[in-house]
Amino acid sequence: MANSSCSDIKVLGAWPSPFVMRVRIALNIKSVKYEFLEETHSSKSQLLLQSNPVYKKIPVLIHGGKPICESLIIVQYIDEVWSSGPSILPSDPYDRAIERFWAAYVDDKIFPSMKLLNTAQGEEKTALVEQVTEGLVLLEEAFQKSSKGKAFFGGDRIGFLDIAFGSMLGWLRAIEKMGGVKLLDEAKTPGLVQWAESLCGDGAVEGIIPDTEKLVEFAKILVKMKGH
Amino acid sequence: MANSSCSDIKVLGAWPSPFVMRVRIALNIKSVKYEFLEETHSSKSQLLLQSNPVYKKIPVLIHGGKPICESLIIVQYIDEVWSSGPSILPSDPYDRAIERFWAAYVDDKIFPSMKLLNTAQGEEKTALVEQVTEGLVLLEEAFQKSSKGKAFFGGDRIGFLDIAFGSMLGWLRAIEKMGGVKLLDEAKTPGLVQWAESLCGDGAVEGIIPDTEKLVEFAKILVKMKGH
Repeated sequence: MANSSCSDIKVLGAWPSPFVMRVRIALNIKSVKYEFLEETHSSKSQLLLQSNPVYKKIPVLIHGGKPICESLIIVQYIDEVWSSGPSILPSDPYDRAIERFWAAYVDDKIFPSMKLLNTAQGEEKTALVEQVTEGLVLLEEAFQKSSKGKAFFGGDRIGFLDIAFGSMLGWLRAIEKMGGVKLLDEAKTPGLVQWAESLCGDGAVEGIIPDTEKLVEFAKILVKMKGH
Repeated sequence: MANSSCSDIKVLGAWPSPFVMRVRIALNIKSVKYEFLEETHSSKSQLLLQSNPVYKKIPVLIHGGKPICESLIIVQYIDEVWSSGPSILPSDPYDRAIERFWAAYVDDKIFPSMKLLNTAQGEEKTALVEQVTEGLVLLEEAFQKSSKGKAFFGGDRIGFLDIAFGSMLGWLRAIEKMGGVKLLDEAKTPGLVQWAESLCGDGAVEGIIPDTEKLVEFAKILVKMKGH
């Protein structure tokens, strides 16, 4: 199933979306070329509305005319379809369950608090910094257990959880910068600090996670747009 | 990996929980015997707190001393470990993605509205009935596409989405009864009405989805307990 032409594979996305980054990193790991169709924030394309009628959200992967939605489901699909490429999920069922568990934790617990933190002030901000930090400390423990002294959650290579959490790194840094706070640090999450460096230096991630400055700029524009 | 003794496999659960039902149905499909450790509503066992320190929630599957949490992750784990038994997820990556998508939809959209509907009154109740019905109509469409005229979402046999949504059937009926409303009906969801009958008659589900009356009784006790 490894031979698909580029026009067969489309990603509907937007460069600042961490969920879209997941799909692009997974395709890069498998060395799959794709057409990137950029959705704008202001209006949704007809193709997006048709391809994801339930949620009308990016990312959508369209493969051979068939749409697949929801970032973590897409990443698993990519792993299963291009199975001859480097594996994204571990082969052991228990390790797979653990990576799935923490990937869902990133989406259900860490991301929502991060998002709120972006615009929070005062006591709410303090509470959210604490919440995110607690989540990251749990993730640090998971990293120590899972990586067994290697660079990634998945060991020597980027895997499912590396993608799931790694896609949040750009925004984590942008939120740190905008809010004047420290979320990942040497004292509480030394493994994740090291991991973040390894991840951003990996070929599959190159050019996908935007510079912190670019995300900060984008966030400012977004706040302005919502202000009107 | 099919030889495990019963004492090797424990399910921490409670009979009324739809999420626990998923795990039990999946183990039944694979003909895996297990020890069922019933958690009470009022206090959590030490084993549960140790096994799921992040969420402290049922279900947990403990296999060979290792805990696995989150019902849909557990079902996938069961499918992967006891791979020689009947498959739970379809073999085709696209079909797998579709079943994962709708299973997540059941958890993210249908279940939360169902839960609220249980105690809602007046306008809120009307709005929630509409929400749940809209969700079920979408699921009906998915069923028509996915089952291709056969009994289950997965075709001839119960699969991932059958388990994910089927586990809600007991509560759906209890909520219909308590609220005097109709959620699944011949006019809007004829396929699902038929599907529900097939599902409840299946050997793997027998004894797992409780009688509507028993759930109604349980719900009344719960409301009383919360009232005090």
